Amino acid sequence: MFTTARRHLRNGGIELADIKYEIIEHVGVLSESPKGWTKELNLISWNGRDPKYDLRDWAPDKAKMGKGVTLTENDLTNLKGILNKLDL
Amino acid sequence: MFTTARRHLRNGGIELADIKYEIIEHVGVLSESPKGWTKELNLISWNGRDPKYDLRDWAPDKAKMGKGVTLTENDLTNLKGILNKLDL
Repeated sequence: MFTTARRHLRNGGIELADIKYEIIEHVGVLSESPKGWTKELNLISWNGRDPKYDLRDWAPDKAKMGKGVTLTENDLTNLKGILNKLDL
Repeated sequence: MFTTARRHLRNGGIELADIKYEIIEHVGVLSESPKGWTKELNLISWNGRDPKYDLRDWAPDKAKMGKGVTLTENDLTNLKGILNKLDL
């Protein structure tokens, strides 16, 4: 469990310091930037609530988080269907 | 092409008014909230730049946007692989 607070940064990132979150499961890494930020799908519990899937960028060592989206299991199922229809 | 400005709202949403964006392709809708916000994967050009995939919540009629993540085609390919390994 991590306790953090957040401050919006000029680069669009969010600095942590007052949010409680716990990464329940590291599901997968989509990519890594030249500066070492990783775009990750994780299962996260925010402020002790039920965990939700979460897609966002993270600085090395999870020191900062970027903006992201929360996804339900149903969202992931539908996203999987959408991606499997794309020519990727 | 839409010209918008954005203002951070208490509910975590972003109100639009000064960002230029164009939705090049509506790729798919993951879900819809009781208030009519939709979680969508789109191909969007921001400020006239090359379009990128974008996953975020939108208010009805695209009047407001929530926070989201930008995704490259490579991100989507990797995300597809991750989702296809999950028990969904």
